[in-house]
Amino acid sequence: MSLKTPKEYIDSLRGLKENLYLLGEKVENWVDNPIIRPSINAIAMTYKIAHEPESEDLAVTESMLTGKKVNRFNALYKSPEDMVKKVKLQRELGQRTACCFQRCVGMDAINAVFSTSYEIDQKYGTAYHQRYREWLKYVQDNDLCIAGAMTDVKGHRGVAPSQQADPDMFVHVVERRSDGIILRGAKAHLTGAANSHEMLIMPTLRMREGDEDYSLTCAVPTDTEGVTLIYGRQSCDTRKLEKGDIDVGNYNFGGQETLTILDNVFVPWERVFMCGEVEFSIMLVERFAGYHRQSYGGCKPGIGDVLIGAAASMADYNGVRRAPHIREKLGEMIHLTETIHGCGLACAYEGWKTKASNYQCDILLANVCKHNVTRFPYELTRLAEDIAGGLLVTTPSEKDFRHPVIGKYIDKYLRGVPEVPTEARYRMLTLIHAMSFGLVAPSYRTESMHGAGSPQAQKIMIERETDMEHKQKLARSIAGIDEREDVLA
Amino acid sequence: MSLKTPKEYIDSLRGLKENLYLLGEKVENWVDNPIIRPSINAIAMTYKIAHEPESEDLAVTESMLTGKKVNRFNALYKSPEDMVKKVKLQRELGQRTACCFQRCVGMDAINAVFSTSYEIDQKYGTAYHQRYREWLKYVQDNDLCIAGAMTDVKGHRGVAPSQQADPDMFVHVVERRSDGIILRGAKAHLTGAANSHEMLIMPTLRMREGDEDYSLTCAVPTDTEGVTLIYGRQSCDTRKLEKGDIDVGNYNFGGQETLTILDNVFVPWERVFMCGEVEFSIMLVERFAGYHRQSYGGCKPGIGDVLIGAAASMADYNGVRRAPHIREKLGEMIHLTETIHGCGLACAYEGWKTKASNYQCDILLANVCKHNVTRFPYELTRLAEDIAGGLLVTTPSEKDFRHPVIGKYIDKYLRGVPEVPTEARYRMLTLIHAMSFGLVAPSYRTESMHGAGSPQAQKIMIERETDMEHKQKLARSIAGIDEREDVLA
Amino acid sequence: MSLKTPKEYIDSLRGLKENLYLLGEKVENWVDNPIIRPSINAIAMTYKIAHEPESEDLAVTESMLTGKKVNRFNALYKSPEDMVKKVKLQRELGQRTACCFQRCVGMDAINAVFSTSYEIDQKYGTAYHQRYREWLKYVQDNDLCIAGAMTDVKGHRGVAPSQQADPDMFVHVVERRSDGIILRGAKAHLTGAANSHEMLIMPTLRMREGDEDYSLTCAVPTDTEGVTLIYGRQSCDTRKLEKGDIDVGNYNFGGQETLTILDNVFVPWERVFMCGEVEFSIMLVERFAGYHRQSYGGCKPGIGDVLIGAAASMADYNGVRRAPHIREKLGEMIHLTETIHGCGLACAYEGWKTKASNYQCDILLANVCKHNVTRFPYELTRLAEDIAGGLLVTTPSEKDFRHPVIGKYIDKYLRGVPEVPTEARYRMLTLIHAMSFGLVAPSYRTESMHGAGSPQAQKIMIERETDMEHKQKLARSIAGIDEREDVLA
Amino acid sequence: MSLKTPKEYIDSLRGLKENLYLLGEKVENWVDNPIIRPSINAIAMTYKIAHEPESEDLAVTESMLTGKKVNRFNALYKSPEDMVKKVKLQRELGQRTACCFQRCVGMDAINAVFSTSYEIDQKYGTAYHQRYREWLKYVQDNDLCIAGAMTDVKGHRGVAPSQQADPDMFVHVVERRSDGIILRGAKAHLTGAANSHEMLIMPTLRMREGDEDYSLTCAVPTDTEGVTLIYGRQSCDTRKLEKGDIDVGNYNFGGQETLTILDNVFVPWERVFMCGEVEFSIMLVERFAGYHRQSYGGCKPGIGDVLIGAAASMADYNGVRRAPHIREKLGEMIHLTETIHGCGLACAYEGWKTKASNYQCDILLANVCKHNVTRFPYELTRLAEDIAGGLLVTTPSEKDFRHPVIGKYIDKYLRGVPEVPTEARYRMLTLIHAMSFGLVAPSYRTESMHGAGSPQAQKIMIERETDMEHKQKLARSIAGIDEREDVLA
Repeated sequence: MSLKTPKEYIDSLRGLKENLYLLGEKVENWVDNPIIRPSINAIAMTYKIAHEPESEDLAVTESMLTGKKVNRFNALYKSPEDMVKKVKLQRELGQRTACCFQRCVGMDAINAVFSTSYEIDQKYGTAYHQRYREWLKYVQDNDLCIAGAMTDVKGHRGVAPSQQADPDMFVHVVERRSDGIILRGAKAHLTGAANSHEMLIMPTLRMREGDEDYSLTCAVPTDTEGVTLIYGRQSCDTRKLEKGDIDVGNYNFGGQETLTILDNVFVPWERVFMCGEVEFSIMLVERFAGYHRQSYGGCKPGIGDVLIGAAASMADYNGVRRAPHIREKLGEMIHLTETIHGCGLACAYEGWKTKASNYQCDILLANVCKHNVTRFPYELTRLAEDIAGGLLVTTPSEKDFRHPVIGKYIDKYLRGVPEVPTEARYRMLTLIHAMSFGLVAPSYRTESMHGAGSPQAQKIMIERETDMEHKQKLARSIAGIDEREDVLA
Repeated sequence: MSLKTPKEYIDSLRGLKENLYLLGEKVENWVDNPIIRPSINAIAMTYKIAHEPESEDLAVTESMLTGKKVNRFNALYKSPEDMVKKVKLQRELGQRTACCFQRCVGMDAINAVFSTSYEIDQKYGTAYHQRYREWLKYVQDNDLCIAGAMTDVKGHRGVAPSQQADPDMFVHVVERRSDGIILRGAKAHLTGAANSHEMLIMPTLRMREGDEDYSLTCAVPTDTEGVTLIYGRQSCDTRKLEKGDIDVGNYNFGGQETLTILDNVFVPWERVFMCGEVEFSIMLVERFAGYHRQSYGGCKPGIGDVLIGAAASMADYNGVRRAPHIREKLGEMIHLTETIHGCGLACAYEGWKTKASNYQCDILLANVCKHNVTRFPYELTRLAEDIAGGLLVTTPSEKDFRHPVIGKYIDKYLRGVPEVPTEARYRMLTLIHAMSFGLVAPSYRTESMHGAGSPQAQKIMIERETDMEHKQKLARSIAGIDEREDVLA
Repeated sequence: MSLKTPKEYIDSLRGLKENLYLLGEKVENWVDNPIIRPSINAIAMTYKIAHEPESEDLAVTESMLTGKKVNRFNALYKSPEDMVKKVKLQRELGQRTACCFQRCVGMDAINAVFSTSYEIDQKYGTAYHQRYREWLKYVQDNDLCIAGAMTDVKGHRGVAPSQQADPDMFVHVVERRSDGIILRGAKAHLTGAANSHEMLIMPTLRMREGDEDYSLTCAVPTDTEGVTLIYGRQSCDTRKLEKGDIDVGNYNFGGQETLTILDNVFVPWERVFMCGEVEFSIMLVERFAGYHRQSYGGCKPGIGDVLIGAAASMADYNGVRRAPHIREKLGEMIHLTETIHGCGLACAYEGWKTKASNYQCDILLANVCKHNVTRFPYELTRLAEDIAGGLLVTTPSEKDFRHPVIGKYIDKYLRGVPEVPTEARYRMLTLIHAMSFGLVAPSYRTESMHGAGSPQAQKIMIERETDMEHKQKLARSIAGIDEREDVLA
Repeated sequence: MSLKTPKEYIDSLRGLKENLYLLGEKVENWVDNPIIRPSINAIAMTYKIAHEPESEDLAVTESMLTGKKVNRFNALYKSPEDMVKKVKLQRELGQRTACCFQRCVGMDAINAVFSTSYEIDQKYGTAYHQRYREWLKYVQDNDLCIAGAMTDVKGHRGVAPSQQADPDMFVHVVERRSDGIILRGAKAHLTGAANSHEMLIMPTLRMREGDEDYSLTCAVPTDTEGVTLIYGRQSCDTRKLEKGDIDVGNYNFGGQETLTILDNVFVPWERVFMCGEVEFSIMLVERFAGYHRQSYGGCKPGIGDVLIGAAASMADYNGVRRAPHIREKLGEMIHLTETIHGCGLACAYEGWKTKASNYQCDILLANVCKHNVTRFPYELTRLAEDIAGGLLVTTPSEKDFRHPVIGKYIDKYLRGVPEVPTEARYRMLTLIHAMSFGLVAPSYRTESMHGAGSPQAQKIMIERETDMEHKQKLARSIAGIDEREDVLA
C-alpha cells in the first residue's frame, strides 16, 4: 500500500539530513522545532485525508502509470473531473488547516513536467519522459512529498538569465559530466521545501538562445549535499516559541518558505528531465502556472471559509450578527470567495488532453481565477477586520489573560455578549489576527498576490490567450464595417 | 422536423393578432415595424443557429419528452453538460447579436415549471405536471417561442400581493370557472413578449397564506383576448426611424420589453400548471432565478466580447493599441468578462438532478454569477468609454456625414490613423455608443442589474445558500474553541 | 452695468450669424431650435444667478482689471477664496440645471491664458498680455459668453502635430499676414460653442520644435467667416422634438458639443495671444487643465445631488426608502459625491499666485479631483439604476401615458405606493434615465471621463507633480538605509 | 517657555508611577522598555518638531487662553487655518515617524470638550467650562501630553450602557462624593495612554435617559491609584527584543494601545467636565469624531508617503521602476493618498466657529475623509505588496544575514540590481513588511478602519449630515413634479 499515514510521513522526514538554518542557527531536529512543526502538520493533513473513507474520492485516485491507488497530490490528472476533485480537495484542506498546505506546488509541477518532457522527446528524440515516468513511479510508490521549485532569485528583473551580472541569479548547469550535472543558484521563497522529500526544479520564465544552461528541469532530494535551506521569517513567527496556544491564532498549522541555496549540487542524468531545450521552458512555465493558478481556486476559498466563519462568530460574540451592515459584509465575503472557487472549477471542467495524455486546465480561465485571487482575499481580510473591531490588534497577551492579578480584568472587560466566555472571543480575535496580520497572513494575502505568478503575469497571459482578432471581427460585423450577418440568409 | 427556419419563425408571427401599442399608437403590422423588427431578428437568430452544422451541438438537442430533435431553447436540461452547452450557446448568440436575444427567459421558465409542477403533484395529487408535459410537447413540436413572464408591477414593494391597496398589482385569479380561470394584472418589462407565441406566466416572489389567488402558473398565447402589450421606450429608439444605418449602432438586432396587461384573460385548465399552492411559489421562483442567473454567464460575456472587440478597434483606429494603459484596460475588460463566464460554467457543471429528472444548476454559484453581472458590465462600459474617447457622445449624425457641404469636413477631421476610413471609425463609435448609452445599453447594463433579480435578491440567496454554521465550526476548531483537529489522531 | 440678464444674453445670440449644422441641415434660427435651446437655457442660468441677491457672493465679483462688478465666469481668480467660490457656484448651477452649463471652459481658459501670456511677454518682450487684457476688458464689459476651445481632432494619437499625414489635424497658422493670421483645423467636441459669443482657441498638448505653427492662442467670434459648427448627436436628442415634456427627462436644460471647423479663418493680431512660442504650450495646457479639473469638483457634485435626490425619491415611491440596503447605497452615493467636492475645494484653498497675479489652484490636487471624477459618477449612475429598478429602461412613452385607451392601464399599473401619483414616478424615472442613458448622460458620464483630459492624462500629471525622491528619502530614513532621525538629537 | 524638549518630555515620564503590564509582567522601568520605547519616541517627535524653526508655523501656535506659545497638540483651533495647519503637521509627523504618533486624540478631545462644556454651562448654569479652562491652562503651561480616552469596552453592542448585564461595560460614576466622584470601567485600545501624563475621559456614544452615570467627562492622570494599563499585543512586537535593527522594519517609532482599567478611581470635581447631562454626550462624541476623522486626513497620508517611497525604492532595487504597470500602481497609490489628504484639508477650510469660540471642522466632509481612510490604506498596502514581491514575507532573519556561514549566500542571492547593496533591499522589504503586516500595520490598517469610529459610524453620520430633502426637491424641480425653474423668470 503506497499511502503513508501522517505518522509515517513525519517519521520519514526524520531520516532526512537537511542543512537547515532558522533565525541564525543551524537546526538539527527540525521536525520537532516549534516554528517549523506546524508546516509539517499542514502537509501531514494531506496524508491524513487519504485515509478517511469520506474523503477518499477526493484524496485518492488510481495512478495513470501503475493503476495503483495513490495520493492525488502525486497523481497525474487523467480527466477534467480529476482537476475538479483537485480543487475540491484543496478547498477541504484549506478549511481544515486555515493555511497553505504546501503540497500543491509539487502536484502541479508533476503534471507540467510530465507533458512537457513528452513533447521535448517527440521533437528531439531525447529520453526525458521515460526517465521521468520512472522517477514518478518511485515517488508514487513511496508516497513522497515533492516541492515544486520554480521561482529563481532573479537579480535585475529586466535582464535575461544568461546576461545577469552574477550568472547565478537563475539556477543553472555549471558542469555537464558523464554521470550527471552540477547545478548552482538559488530558489527564492520555495514553498514546503524543508518538509518535502525532494524538490522538482524547473525554470522560472521564458528562455531564449544563450540561456541553454538555465533551461533545466530535474529532481533533487532536499538533503542532497550542497543544498542549504534558509527558513524565511514569518509575521509573528516567534509567538510559536511562547507558552500558550492563543496568541499564535492558528496553533497547529502553518506555511513554510525557504530560500534554497544550490551550491554545486550534483544531479545524476536519470533525474534530469530537461536540459538545454530553451524553447520548451515557456511551455513548462505556462503549463505549471496554469495548473497552479487553478489551485488557488481551491485552497484560498477554503481558507476564506474559515475567515468568514470567524468573522460571523465575532459578530455573534459582539451581539451584532443580524445587523444589516454586518450581513451585507458577510454576504460580500461569501460572494468573493465563491467567485474564486467558481473560476477554479470552470477552468478544471474546461480542461483538455495533452499529447502525453494527462489533462491541462483551461489556461485563460486559470489565469482569470488567479487574477481574482490577487484581489479578493485582501478585500476579505479588510471586511473581516471591519467586523472584528479594533480589538483585533490591541488584545493583551495570553500571559496577561492567565495572570493572577490582571487576568480577571481582562476576563471581565473583554467579554462581548454575556453568554459567550471571554476566552472564546479572545481566540476568535487571534485567529482573525493570524489570518490578516500574523502567521497565516502570508499564506492568505501575499501568496495570493505572488504565488503562481504576480498579477502582471496573469494580465499578460490573459492578453495572450485571448483571440482579440475574433472579438474585433464580431464588432466589425455588428457595426457594419464588415458585412453584417443576415439572419434570413 | 420541428426546427423552424428564421423565415418560418417570422412568418408565423404574422399570424398573431397582438394588441400592441408603441409610442402612443396601436401597431397593426408590428412584424415589419422598424423599431420592433430588430428584436424579432435577434430571436430569429436562435432559430438560424439551429440550422448551422457547426453549431448543432450547441443549439439542438434531443427532447427528453419525445426523443425528437428540438431547439435547445425549448428543451429540458438532461444533464450538467446540457446546461454548459446552454451558456456556450448564449455566449455565441450574444457575440452575434450584441444584445439580448430574449428567448432564454422562456427556456429557463420551461425547466423551472417542469420540476416544480412535478413536486406539486407529488404532494397534492394534482395533474399539473402531466398537463404541462402535453403543453411542452406541443411547444417543442411547433418550435414555438415562449416568453417567460415573471415580474409583476408590484405596487408598494413592502406589501404582500394580497394586501396591496389595488389587488391587481400582482397577476391573480379573479374567477375560477369549470373550464378555466380568469386572470387580471400586469407583467412589467416583459422581455420578448410581442415576438413570442406564448407567455409562460409565473409568480414573482414568495407567497404566503392568503396569497392563494396569486400563486399561479399558466400559459397564455400573446394574442389572447384581454392581453395588451405596451412597448417600452428604449434609449435612442427613434433612431431606427431615421434613414441610414450608422447612428443606431447595432442596425440589425435589439432587445424588447413590454408592459403586458392582462385584463380579464381566460385560461383553460389544461394550460394551468399551478393554482393556489402558495408554498411552491418560492420553489418556482428560486429555480427559475437559479437558471436565469446562470444565463447571464452566457449572454453577457458574449455581448462583452463585442464591446471588447470594439474598444480594441477604436484603439487601433486612434493609433494607440499598444499603449500600456490601453492594453491594461483591455486586459481588465477580458478578465471581468471571463470571470462572469467562468461562474456561469461552474454553476452548470455543478448541477444536480431534480425529482422530475431534469437538471438544476448550482443555486449558490448561479447567484454569485449574476451578482458579478450586476457590477462588471458597468465597469466594462466605463472602460470602453475611456478607450473610445469623448467623440463617443459628440459625433455628428450620419446625415451630416453624408451631407454634400459639410460631409467632407467630417470625413477629413474625424479620421484617426490615415489608413482607416473615417466611416469605419464612425461606425465603431456608434456601436460603442449603442452599447453604453443607446439601444443596446438596456440589454447590457440595466438588464445585467435587474434581470433575473436585482443585486439584493442575490445577496439574500447567497446568504441563504451558505452553510454558515459549518464555516463557524471550522473557525472554532482552528481557534481551539472547539476541539482542534489532531493530524496524528 | 455689465451683467446681462438671461433675456439679454439670449437676445444677443440672435445677432450671431453662425454657420451651424444639425442632423444634416443648416439651422438658421438656432436660438429657438428645440434641440439646441436647452443648452442655451443652461448657459442663461449662469446669467440669471448673477442677478439673485442670495447668490451674488458666489456669482458676481470685482474685476481685477477694472474694479467693476463682473460675472464670475468672466473674472480672474484674485485669491484662493475666489476659486472656492467658483466650485461652490458650479455646484449650485449643477444642482439647478442637472447638466453641463458649459461656461466654465471659458472661465478657466480666461485665467490660464492670462498668466501664460504674461510669462511669454516676460521672456520674449512680446505684447500678448496687454492685448489680452484689452480683449478681456471688452468681454467683461459686455458680459460675453466665451467658449474655451482646446481639444483638437488629433488624427493619429501617436504622432506630433506637425508630423501628421494631414497637417490640419491640429489647428494651426497657415499664413501670417501684416494684419493678422489665417487658421485652419478643427476643434473636436467643443463644449458650448454655438451658444457663446466667442471662442478662446488654445493648443491641446505639449508642442516641440517644429510645431511653431500649432502653438497658438487667439480669440475668434463664433460667427466669423470660415467657422462651421456641426452639432454633435446626443443620446435621445430627438426626444426634444416630440410633444410632451416627460420622456426627455430634463426638459429645460442640456449640454452641447460641436465639431468646430476653422477653414481659413482670419484673426487680427490684436486677438492673438500666443503664436509660435512652443515651450509655453504645455504651461498653458497644464494651467488650464488644472483649473478645469478643479471645475469638475463643483459641477459634477451638483449634478450628483440631483441624481441622489432622484434615487431617494424613487425609493420613496417604491416604498423602500428605509430598507437598509437602500440607505447603504444612498449613503455611498453621497460619500462619493462629497469626496469629489472635497477635492475640488482643497485644490482651490491650496492655490498660489501666478506671476501675472491671478491665482492658480493646486495642480496635484486638481488632478486628483478630476481623476476621481473619471470613476465615481459611473458608480453613482450604477447605484441609481440599482435603486430605480428595471422600469428605468422599459417605461412606455408619454404618448402612451396620455393615450385614451391604454393610458389608464399605465396609470393603474405603474403606480408604486398608493399616495404618489403615477406621473410623479414616471417623471422621476425619466429623469434618472436622462442622467444615466439619455440627454444628460454625456454631461455626467462621458464628460466626467474625458472632459479636461482623459484619466491617463491625470495619471501622468499626478506622477509629474509628485516629489517621489522626497518620499523615497523618507522611506530610506525610516528603514535605516540613510541615517535615521534621532528624536533626541 | 512652555514647550518641552523631547528629552524633557521623556524625563517627565519617568516621574509617573504607572501600574503597567506587558506580556504578563508588571513593568517598572517602562520608559526604557524596548517594546514600549518606540511609542514614546513617536510622541517625542511631537515635542521635537515644536523646536524646529522651519516647522514652527505648523507646530506652535498662540494659546487662545493665555496668548502664550503652545504646542499645537494642546491648543484650541482658533480658525479654519489652524485646522489646516493641524493636518499638515500631522502629515509631516506621519512622514517622519511612519506610524501613529498618538497625540492627536488628546488634541481633538481638548477641542471637543471645550465647546461642549461651554454649551452645557449655558443650558444648566454649571461650571464645567471654567474648570476646564483652568485645567487646560495647566496642561498648556506644562506642555503635558494628553490621551483622549473615549472607546469603552462595550459588552453586548446592541444594549445601552445602563442596561448591560455587567454595569461596568461603560465607564461610569459609582459614587458621588463632596470632593469628587468614583469611577469604574475600562477604556479599550486606548491610544497613547502609557506615554501620556493624563487621560481625558469621554463617553463613547449617544446616552439616553437612565444613562446619567455614564455621561461623564473628566481628566485623570495616568498614574492615579486604581488605574491599570495592560499593553496590547502588536503584530511582531517581540522583534523589538531581538538584537539587530532590520527585522523590526521601523526601528525607532511605533504606536501603542492599552486596555485601561479604572477600578474605583477617584476624580476631584475640579477635573470633572460633564457629569450626567445625557443629551450632551452625543454632541461631544460627534464633535470629537469630526475632529478626529479629519485627523486621519493628515497622519495617514504622511504614513502613506513613506509606503509609496518604499514601494518605489523596491521597484528601483528590482530594476523595474519604469515598467508601465509599476508606474500605474505607484500613481494609483499617490492618487489615493492625496484624495484622503484633500478631504482632510477641505473639512478644515470649511470649518465653523462654535459658541465657545474655537472652531469645528465641517462634520460631513470630515466623515467623508475618514470613510475613505477605511478603504484606501488597504488598497495601498495591497499595491505595495504587489510591487515589493513575495520576498516581503519570506526574507530570512537579520541573524541569518549576519551569520558567518550563510550570510554570504543571502548577500549574494537576495541582491536585485547590482548597484544596490543587498542590505538596502533587505531593509526596504522589512519596512514594507512592518507597514503591511508588522509593527506599523495596526497604525496604518486597523486604526484606519476603526480609529475615530468604524465605517458604519461614518455612514450613519454622512446620512445624518445630508439634507436629503433639499436634494429631492432639486430632483422634483428638474423632473417637473414640482414647478420647473424658468430661467427667464
